[in-house]
Amino acid sequence: MQVVRDGRALRGRIDVCRRTGATVGFVPTMGALHEGHLSLVRKAREAVKCLVVSIFVNPLQFGPGEDLDRYPRDEEGDLALLEKEGVDFAFLPGEEELYPPDFDTKVQPGAVARDLEGAFRPGHFTGVCTVVLKLFHLVGPHAAWFGAKDAQQLAVIRKMVRDLSMPVRIEVGPTVREPDGLALSSRNRYLSREERERALSLSRGLFAARRAHEAGERSGAVLLDLARREMEGLVDLDYLEIRDPHTFRPVPDPVENGLLLVAGKVGSTRLIDNTPLGKEAARAAGEEV
Amino acid sequence: MQVVRDGRALRGRIDVCRRTGATVGFVPTMGALHEGHLSLVRKAREAVKCLVVSIFVNPLQFGPGEDLDRYPRDEEGDLALLEKEGVDFAFLPGEEELYPPDFDTKVQPGAVARDLEGAFRPGHFTGVCTVVLKLFHLVGPHAAWFGAKDAQQLAVIRKMVRDLSMPVRIEVGPTVREPDGLALSSRNRYLSREERERALSLSRGLFAARRAHEAGERSGAVLLDLARREMEGLVDLDYLEIRDPHTFRPVPDPVENGLLLVAGKVGSTRLIDNTPLGKEAARAAGEEV
Repeated sequence: MQVVRDGRALRGRIDVCRRTGATVGFVPTMGALHEGHLSLVRKAREAVKCLVVSIFVNPLQFGPGEDLDRYPRDEEGDLALLEKEGVDFAFLPGEEELYPPDFDTKVQPGAVARDLEGAFRPGHFTGVCTVVLKLFHLVGPHAAWFGAKDAQQLAVIRKMVRDLSMPVRIEVGPTVREPDGLALSSRNRYLSREERERALSLSRGLFAARRAHEAGERSGAVLLDLARREMEGLVDLDYLEIRDPHTFRPVPDPVENGLLLVAGKVGSTRLIDNTPLGKEAARAAGEEV
Repeated sequence: MQVVRDGRALRGRIDVCRRTGATVGFVPTMGALHEGHLSLVRKAREAVKCLVVSIFVNPLQFGPGEDLDRYPRDEEGDLALLEKEGVDFAFLPGEEELYPPDFDTKVQPGAVARDLEGAFRPGHFTGVCTVVLKLFHLVGPHAAWFGAKDAQQLAVIRKMVRDLSMPVRIEVGPTVREPDGLALSSRNRYLSREERERALSLSRGLFAARRAHEAGERSGAVLLDLARREMEGLVDLDYLEIRDPHTFRPVPDPVENGLLLVAGKVGSTRLIDNTPLGKEAARAAGEEV
């Protein structure tokens, strides 16, 4: 595995592979890697000849008062994990290279980025789109892998790729969970033991609704109520909603297909999670159906 | 010359060239081609193996009340000219392909796009950046050529390419003029004979200031006054200013290097023109110094 910190050097080395006809795959991450990331890396590893994984904690997607400064960083540990997965290039760009002092051109996503995370984290998806676009330009991948846990991010990026005519295929890997249901997240390490216990109510609620949907329940109000009952008093909810997995618009009731999405705080840690309702939604979330 | 109207087909055919190691050059245009465009095509033709020229009147860069509907179109004439210049691919994308009904992701340029054209044509540079980014993604050029006449557009695109880490080299060709000084523009064909006569005051004013600068005059006020005197009463000026050719910020006085820029209406036709003051500015405008 080659560790590359300079974008121009990276582009040059990947071009060498590309000219041999090799397909290039890319998994962008913010590091603090867990099994969720690694499952994407393994899918990508099987699919392409030349595999690039980036680690960059992108300041542009953090708002004021968010956890940019304390976001977990473990470069050495991350590189060891990537090496073991047979990654070809670990790309660790510097903040000065990606965002020089006069940097001010940005990608502005549209309606899909407006609600939910877009409303609770103003500017977040502008930051996500801008850095993903830049990384795509530097890496030049044929395909890139994203996790279903960040469902709105996935939808925003799919829309950006289509709207901006980007020559890259977007692939999705399903959310990876602890045995007790907690969705893997680099932010889980912020949780105390007691907070982690409370955080379990998120997946418990989502699964209660999902089971009810599988059993035939189609009322949005009932499904949301089933989920909310588990979480109330344990999580300080930002939102709990059912949305279309591509447009992120509200879905018609009765609910045939949709993503059940939740965000909320446990102590000072903000967590998100989601589960698909219906086969089409499950497919969009990378599940085998 | 192959005429291609489908972006995906274009990308595939260019990829075939690219895999042989051929360099790809690109000249984006809105058609109604004149010697200004053709001078760029010739420069690009000399520099690359595979040359793509696009013709697309981009609705996103026209504001309400602007001349989108009457903008000159001459597909047959344009294609004949490109054929004669030895272009490999003429790319004529459809509006439905570039802007499907739900299209809403855009590139937002920063400070360089704020004043002058950016102020008089709100949204114009967002439209320019977005379409140029899309076309770059579809064509995948190593280098692209732009005219110095659209000086702020050139600066905005150079900034976008840097800020968004785009793997493309931006080249510039100097403004081409009629023997009497009128800068070539597809919009010149809107002018009546009497309006064309008045429009000559634009280049006359710019050159008066340029000659004074070459003779040692460094006062911005004096240089601007020399230019304004020629134009007053003949052109309804939007602005006449000296700006830095890269940042488009005002330049310090005394003026060592800068772009003298003018925009105004002659009848109902809005024209722009500019000339560099100083060697560095001339170099940035593609002149040999």
